[in-house]
Amino acid sequence: MSPEPPFDAVKLALPHLRALKAYTPGLQPSEPGWVKLNTNECPYPPSPRVADAILREVGTDGASLRLYPNPSSRPLREALAAHHGVGVENVCVGNGSDDILNLLVRLFCSGASPAGFTLPSYSLYPVLVGIQDGRSEVIEFDRSMRLPIDRMIGSSAKVFFLTSPNAPTGVGFKTAEIERVLKEFRGVLVVDEAYAPFAGEDSVPLLARHPNLVVVRTFSKAYALAGMRIGYALAGPDVIGLLDRVRDSYNVNRVSQAGALAALGDTGYYGRVIATIRDTRDEFVRHCAEGRGWFTYPSEANFVFTEPKDGRGRTGAVVAGSAAAFLDARRILVRRFPSHALTESFLRITVGTNEEMLVLNQALEAWAHS
Amino acid sequence: MSPEPPFDAVKLALPHLRALKAYTPGLQPSEPGWVKLNTNECPYPPSPRVADAILREVGTDGASLRLYPNPSSRPLREALAAHHGVGVENVCVGNGSDDILNLLVRLFCSGASPAGFTLPSYSLYPVLVGIQDGRSEVIEFDRSMRLPIDRMIGSSAKVFFLTSPNAPTGVGFKTAEIERVLKEFRGVLVVDEAYAPFAGEDSVPLLARHPNLVVVRTFSKAYALAGMRIGYALAGPDVIGLLDRVRDSYNVNRVSQAGALAALGDTGYYGRVIATIRDTRDEFVRHCAEGRGWFTYPSEANFVFTEPKDGRGRTGAVVAGSAAAFLDARRILVRRFPSHALTESFLRITVGTNEEMLVLNQALEAWAHS
Repeated sequence: MSPEPPFDAVKLALPHLRALKAYTPGLQPSEPGWVKLNTNECPYPPSPRVADAILREVGTDGASLRLYPNPSSRPLREALAAHHGVGVENVCVGNGSDDILNLLVRLFCSGASPAGFTLPSYSLYPVLVGIQDGRSEVIEFDRSMRLPIDRMIGSSAKVFFLTSPNAPTGVGFKTAEIERVLKEFRGVLVVDEAYAPFAGEDSVPLLARHPNLVVVRTFSKAYALAGMRIGYALAGPDVIGLLDRVRDSYNVNRVSQAGALAALGDTGYYGRVIATIRDTRDEFVRHCAEGRGWFTYPSEANFVFTEPKDGRGRTGAVVAGSAAAFLDARRILVRRFPSHALTESFLRITVGTNEEMLVLNQALEAWAHS
Repeated sequence: MSPEPPFDAVKLALPHLRALKAYTPGLQPSEPGWVKLNTNECPYPPSPRVADAILREVGTDGASLRLYPNPSSRPLREALAAHHGVGVENVCVGNGSDDILNLLVRLFCSGASPAGFTLPSYSLYPVLVGIQDGRSEVIEFDRSMRLPIDRMIGSSAKVFFLTSPNAPTGVGFKTAEIERVLKEFRGVLVVDEAYAPFAGEDSVPLLARHPNLVVVRTFSKAYALAGMRIGYALAGPDVIGLLDRVRDSYNVNRVSQAGALAALGDTGYYGRVIATIRDTRDEFVRHCAEGRGWFTYPSEANFVFTEPKDGRGRTGAVVAGSAAAFLDARRILVRRFPSHALTESFLRITVGTNEEMLVLNQALEAWAHS
């Protein structure tokens, strides 16, 4: 009798998972002192009402924390419905918008039912499709980054993820263009609007006319609550019902529900924060494009995608890598996307405070003359 | 030309999801005044260190919340590893233990790769298998609720979920019995130890000897943090690596990480809370079994599964339903499991404070004489 083979968990796992590559989040240094422009966080704190609401929820003894949260985040759904002028049956809340995106993949994508997305766009989509053992249909942008409307309409995807404004380019798409896709595309179009509060237009007004539209939003960027993990979907009641069927029944904790609810109530504060970030962004784009002569996409997000030129006027992946390393050595974090020809020569730089952008600009100046 | 059919999201969803039944969480009344003994929450607040840690994390202005949390909950993993005497490579943290259970189903279960569980046990397992379009292998207990060791060993499941102590019965299994399964079962055995802190034994000591063991724990019950959504897995580094590959990269928010870390540090406080709950539980079991003569399983959890007898000595689903309705009318919530012959005649009653148990006992007395 031959001995039993040793236990091998990886061999027991579903075959498609063995070679799966996990999503790589941006670096999150645990020590202070970094100028952190790498993960599109808000450089300003959340509304003071958020801390107040959390302190109220926790109380002096944390007694409320012993009880499960509202399973459907119902008060937050109601507030989001009022905020966007939709019904409460049009809203589902997730543990970050990544939770919602994952659920949408689980609803609509399989080996026989492809999920579509553009390249470049949010690099989580292919990871989620991979976990699901699903088929991907990838539509590549060209350097113009114009929306490939006809190719999207012709796609056989059952669900298509469009990041709008796009990541990592920051390029915004017109609502009218997105509506052209919605009119003819036969699948579900998920418009991932993580950055829409920084843009001129968004897709929410299209919800009333297009049952095949899902709009995904997050509190991580414009609401300065990346640390609390709250995102949501706006869609027809059928899609919301499906999401509720597959999501975890207590997916959003008490403190996050309370914090998001408070944030949503302070539109004045966030209006000012967003206006400031847009001003800083537009100035930085001008600085890169006109001041330095670097190819830079117009941005409708809270980050800027720019192609650095070194002292001899060269661009490319090596040049971008050298700029990022130079910044890193000065404790300034930005993000690179070296895995594709359209993105490898660029830096994606989150819009920070004016002080942070000054430090960044001085470092970029020093690099260009190094 | 015939007109396009109207858009139908449900038809676009994967076929197996159309008829899926969602998990039904226990009722969470939003108004106060209920004696809430239906979802196995801790009747005492969390350690005072939890509120302190959350207030420190949030600060006066919530500024830390704008930044993403530690993606792997690393400080919490380190503390959990030290707490259980395992390595940090043996720990993965989830957004509640339900997050971990869901990920384990996604790792090991498909239509060709069955997931096993006992009936009754935690009713979430079949829901998770359903979402995954996986095959289930169900092993039914008999009324003795003894662990079906040989049937588990003979199961063809690639992953087997065992709730220990079991839910909703509260019956504990011996570590030696679980080890017998581990020695011969060829799949991954997930021992879901949500209630283990209330039991005499647990499976953590088996981790060093059995690479096919995964222990799942939660902060929702013994740590009084159901509202914060924190659970974790202890397992070999291969299984932890697989979990990290499929989990959301920021699955646990900042405040929950801080709260759990603080709770873990206050073993003295929780030792007293657990001892009190066990005393209250044992007294309530005696009260039901000896005092009232109701068939009642010995409990190693923070709840009691008892079969009420009405004034005429009758038991059964109708009797249990009448008792639950009587309690409900007095704003006392307990839980019923009417979908199976082994459980339909029982009430599952969470162990509350002594004051709550007094109110409950008086109401049960009144019902029995009604």
